[in-house]
Amino acid sequence: MIVILKPQAEAGRVSALMEQIKRLGVDIHYSQGTTETILGLVGDTAHVDVDWLRASDIVADVRRVSEPYKLANRRFHPQDTQVTVSGRRIGEGAFCVIAGPCSVESEEQLLQVASAVKASGATCLRGGAFKPRTSPYSFQGLENEGLRLLLEARRITGLPIVTEIMSETQLDDFADVDIIQVGARNMQNFRLLKALGHSRKPVLLKRGLSATIEELLMSAEYVLAGGNPNVILCERGIRTFEKMIRNNLDISAVPVIKEKSHLPVLIDPSHAAGIAWMVKPLARTAVAAGADGLMIEVHNNPSCALCDGAQSLDPAQFDLLMQDIRRRAAFEEKVMS
Amino acid sequence: MIVILKPQAEAGRVSALMEQIKRLGVDIHYSQGTTETILGLVGDTAHVDVDWLRASDIVADVRRVSEPYKLANRRFHPQDTQVTVSGRRIGEGAFCVIAGPCSVESEEQLLQVASAVKASGATCLRGGAFKPRTSPYSFQGLENEGLRLLLEARRITGLPIVTEIMSETQLDDFADVDIIQVGARNMQNFRLLKALGHSRKPVLLKRGLSATIEELLMSAEYVLAGGNPNVILCERGIRTFEKMIRNNLDISAVPVIKEKSHLPVLIDPSHAAGIAWMVKPLARTAVAAGADGLMIEVHNNPSCALCDGAQSLDPAQFDLLMQDIRRRAAFEEKVMS
Amino acid sequence: MIVILKPQAEAGRVSALMEQIKRLGVDIHYSQGTTETILGLVGDTAHVDVDWLRASDIVADVRRVSEPYKLANRRFHPQDTQVTVSGRRIGEGAFCVIAGPCSVESEEQLLQVASAVKASGATCLRGGAFKPRTSPYSFQGLENEGLRLLLEARRITGLPIVTEIMSETQLDDFADVDIIQVGARNMQNFRLLKALGHSRKPVLLKRGLSATIEELLMSAEYVLAGGNPNVILCERGIRTFEKMIRNNLDISAVPVIKEKSHLPVLIDPSHAAGIAWMVKPLARTAVAAGADGLMIEVHNNPSCALCDGAQSLDPAQFDLLMQDIRRRAAFEEKVMS
Amino acid sequence: MIVILKPQAEAGRVSALMEQIKRLGVDIHYSQGTTETILGLVGDTAHVDVDWLRASDIVADVRRVSEPYKLANRRFHPQDTQVTVSGRRIGEGAFCVIAGPCSVESEEQLLQVASAVKASGATCLRGGAFKPRTSPYSFQGLENEGLRLLLEARRITGLPIVTEIMSETQLDDFADVDIIQVGARNMQNFRLLKALGHSRKPVLLKRGLSATIEELLMSAEYVLAGGNPNVILCERGIRTFEKMIRNNLDISAVPVIKEKSHLPVLIDPSHAAGIAWMVKPLARTAVAAGADGLMIEVHNNPSCALCDGAQSLDPAQFDLLMQDIRRRAAFEEKVMS
Repeated sequence: MIVILKPQAEAGRVSALMEQIKRLGVDIHYSQGTTETILGLVGDTAHVDVDWLRASDIVADVRRVSEPYKLANRRFHPQDTQVTVSGRRIGEGAFCVIAGPCSVESEEQLLQVASAVKASGATCLRGGAFKPRTSPYSFQGLENEGLRLLLEARRITGLPIVTEIMSETQLDDFADVDIIQVGARNMQNFRLLKALGHSRKPVLLKRGLSATIEELLMSAEYVLAGGNPNVILCERGIRTFEKMIRNNLDISAVPVIKEKSHLPVLIDPSHAAGIAWMVKPLARTAVAAGADGLMIEVHNNPSCALCDGAQSLDPAQFDLLMQDIRRRAAFEEKVMS
Repeated sequence: MIVILKPQAEAGRVSALMEQIKRLGVDIHYSQGTTETILGLVGDTAHVDVDWLRASDIVADVRRVSEPYKLANRRFHPQDTQVTVSGRRIGEGAFCVIAGPCSVESEEQLLQVASAVKASGATCLRGGAFKPRTSPYSFQGLENEGLRLLLEARRITGLPIVTEIMSETQLDDFADVDIIQVGARNMQNFRLLKALGHSRKPVLLKRGLSATIEELLMSAEYVLAGGNPNVILCERGIRTFEKMIRNNLDISAVPVIKEKSHLPVLIDPSHAAGIAWMVKPLARTAVAAGADGLMIEVHNNPSCALCDGAQSLDPAQFDLLMQDIRRRAAFEEKVMS
Repeated sequence: MIVILKPQAEAGRVSALMEQIKRLGVDIHYSQGTTETILGLVGDTAHVDVDWLRASDIVADVRRVSEPYKLANRRFHPQDTQVTVSGRRIGEGAFCVIAGPCSVESEEQLLQVASAVKASGATCLRGGAFKPRTSPYSFQGLENEGLRLLLEARRITGLPIVTEIMSETQLDDFADVDIIQVGARNMQNFRLLKALGHSRKPVLLKRGLSATIEELLMSAEYVLAGGNPNVILCERGIRTFEKMIRNNLDISAVPVIKEKSHLPVLIDPSHAAGIAWMVKPLARTAVAAGADGLMIEVHNNPSCALCDGAQSLDPAQFDLLMQDIRRRAAFEEKVMS
Repeated sequence: MIVILKPQAEAGRVSALMEQIKRLGVDIHYSQGTTETILGLVGDTAHVDVDWLRASDIVADVRRVSEPYKLANRRFHPQDTQVTVSGRRIGEGAFCVIAGPCSVESEEQLLQVASAVKASGATCLRGGAFKPRTSPYSFQGLENEGLRLLLEARRITGLPIVTEIMSETQLDDFADVDIIQVGARNMQNFRLLKALGHSRKPVLLKRGLSATIEELLMSAEYVLAGGNPNVILCERGIRTFEKMIRNNLDISAVPVIKEKSHLPVLIDPSHAAGIAWMVKPLARTAVAAGADGLMIEVHNNPSCALCDGAQSLDPAQFDLLMQDIRRRAAFEEKVMS
């Protein structure tokens, strides 16, 4: 950690600050220049509070050198993490495809989609029972009945299920869910993250619309710090000035996260694109970028979907996509899980 | 609502779509051009789902003409809303200042700050008992003990208290809080918003770091739709590419929200600036923009604050700021509340 | 084009406005709803000025339905454009790689890099003679001597050369350059674009750091409207809030531009990444996204580069990249040009 | 400047790098920690190239501590700069208002607007003769005839004129212009900036739509480094994700620039807002933020303006605004210039 002092900082106050810092158990290298003085803090600076230093009126700036996340950090955990869900592997050479409708609408709809995506080779079934909607007047999901239908679809197809949780109070209701999804809007719902840390359920953590990669890793750190190592990250597009696409898929997030962390990373091209025809080209870039899998919206009848129909593929389109993805995963020497 | 059809849309399918739309109780004006065909949907289009239309493969684009929020909309509620808290007024000509520490740290700290901000003329006391922190290793707040200290400070100073809720499960614990704050990270925690809609407590709703103004109004709509009319909005800086400031205060949000909605709007210059010296110039722009008040972080000893010390004013700085703000509120013909 | 009138617009003024619009040669479909009145303008609306309509005080909003670009628009030019440069093809099934140093530094440096990238299979040689630098104190390029060295490198290697122009006054000096690059900072230097429109030289137009895709296509339209059909687009990363990468490669720009326009699109992963190790994964996503080629910075000794060394590959790294790219282009059924 | 070395950097290579750095005339403070090694470069680091250091494969990161701009830096030039234009002062306690039409359209239009804004108390007359338009099909300005009309308007009203230059080739034609404006799209047209540095004309430099404040100051540095001290900065809104306003006025830019630089700063609320009714509230925030003046679009008949009519005030609206601004400038103890 680097502390840059103000040019006019009084010597006595600088000494006092340095004493306080040393009491935190870190060493200081002092560099006096003509225009600035720099304190280099070396040692375990994890417990040195940047805010506390910045608030001192003799400090001009503070910059972290080492990352604030530890358990999510590849530096301290060099090998890739692989999460296992009912015998299916996610990460470390395996390529998974989680597919299904935006929201569970009826038994018939869910079972049709579930058996279709299974036939096409999907790894897991997704489906929203509780839906976070911008408008209070939009369809909010079938709620507990939706959960029940998902479990029924799992019983019939054998596909593990992924569904979104909205609050830590729902953890008991989600006891039989295979992967609990934390949506983009809840990425910094820290009470929920802490509660998931005390579980051992695999957690699929989606990046917030304007969350930095570091913030995403810090949210993963909340779950890991609670003792749950089963975290899967998911990039789903970020918010920018561009108007022709709903969100900008941040494809560079894949290599950056792979460099910084050992956790698996999926891409959700459906939410990034917001429109069905763009799912395929974006899915292709995900495979090429080194992602560990995809999350794709599929609906038996997109024109009648109660939510996000515009971005949903129909089963035939999904089957074609899967054929393409399988060839591409093989090209990248990944095994479909 | 405008539906733009694809140039090659088949006549039979267009008629079928038009029939479906009419069954929703809206009229259609059909405009055929050389390069595009447009359906103008007129009447009450609130229940026409944009997603459903966009998912049709003969539809090129759909554009809403009227706003998706109703209860928050000034068009249907022309007069300003004023929220009353223990006899103090917020909005409609009154100018309020909510001040206090980022987090409650101890009885001594809170009482010192509370009596100082009261002496300087603050309307309400703020203080975090439950803190949403990016890092699991940062101070997370005194929690229920913090709430207890806030109520104690209210008893002693008479200042109404504002504090942040993290989850709908805490509503009972917040029964004695005067204004419940929903933080930027929870702006789209819809379960929390719904629960607050069933309460009658004043809700201070902060704009998310990358939430559009429309999304902020839609989140307010969740609370209003539940039956709670006491919503106060707060702009606290948005995320952009600029690196010299922590967040960009979106000062235009004030006139835009005033045009679109009847709800009171506060500005939080402390979180926008991220640094104490910039609080004063930003607070001044808030008054000039027509905001209904300010939310300011004050700490008895900013260099030792456990959270956000860099942006906190000390009591003397806050007192000077209040003198300045009072003169400016008078200039704008606002009454300090 | 859709014109939304204000609810309280007077009938007489609405008629007058409609008369004015009709005089521009377009038809109007009038739709009166309960909360809004809509005018649907149909016919050739290219010459109807949105600004003029928006300025009317009875108009609430104006929305374009058809795109404002015509010559760049795939709707009126369905087949892909292919640009030919000294017998090498760019676009329409051909995959090109433009490689070379950020800036020309010396004859030795340029010839070493040029022969290395030729040996590895590059299509064209890039190199900056005139450098747009943020700081007036940074190296500004060898200028005309740089141009001379580029022509020398072309003579020796046979590779067509690509170099950046800074001003329309340089067109004569660039007479022997094969492809004239317009840099991101000059994407809306309209005098330069107009001058290039009067030339027949292939123009490589880079997207500005915060230019929308529509603005990029409008800048291309300037060149096309002047009579020069040889425009190649290049995406090189956009500016967002994310701090871990220099710019966010907007990979969705490739399918979007391919849908909207017939012009070839390249990707510059070097400028997007800002760091050498990320060039390879981003280059892979470019091939998968359907881009027509790459623009890669290569330096014989990146640690000593006078500009952008951090993002430059050395010749050995570039050779490995080319082997990988060739396999990927073949997978996509593209022919290396 | 701080150089962070990679953990595994070889001792021999570190020594070699340190030798190279010392030869540039700067001292190094070496700090070895358990997880990182830091070199603190002290002395005059202006000529140490960050790119060069970053390109070294033993370097993990490089961070500048001191600002890269010198002549624009308040640290080396503590007192405010005041630019004088035909006896009118801009900056340092004076408050100026530059007003006029977006583009010069006719003698009648310009003279009407010029005499109106003069009567209302404007400091200077603005008007575009050469217009940078996104579309090649939009009105591009009256060009040299526009310049002639501006000079005529100055002769009649006595108001100094401000107009936008498009290219360094126009400098001779702009010899009689009082203040040369560099538009947002040309903020990094470095050839133009260099040419203006060799002039002594006051330069009004507008911030690019996604330029950082540091980049704006670096562009000012180009002009200052050429020997021209007469630079006036102008903030006109930045590009963000928000859709309800054309650009987000970055009001914090005013206090930040005032802290970092001694140059005058104006605000252009017309371009930020994009709509006339929002000009007034934004202009008010500019005065409160400490800006040195405003730039306002005024048209004698906004509904018929050939450009940006929607954001133009008519003379009566401008007169009301000026009355308001005069009261506010007096409140801030500024003198109208």
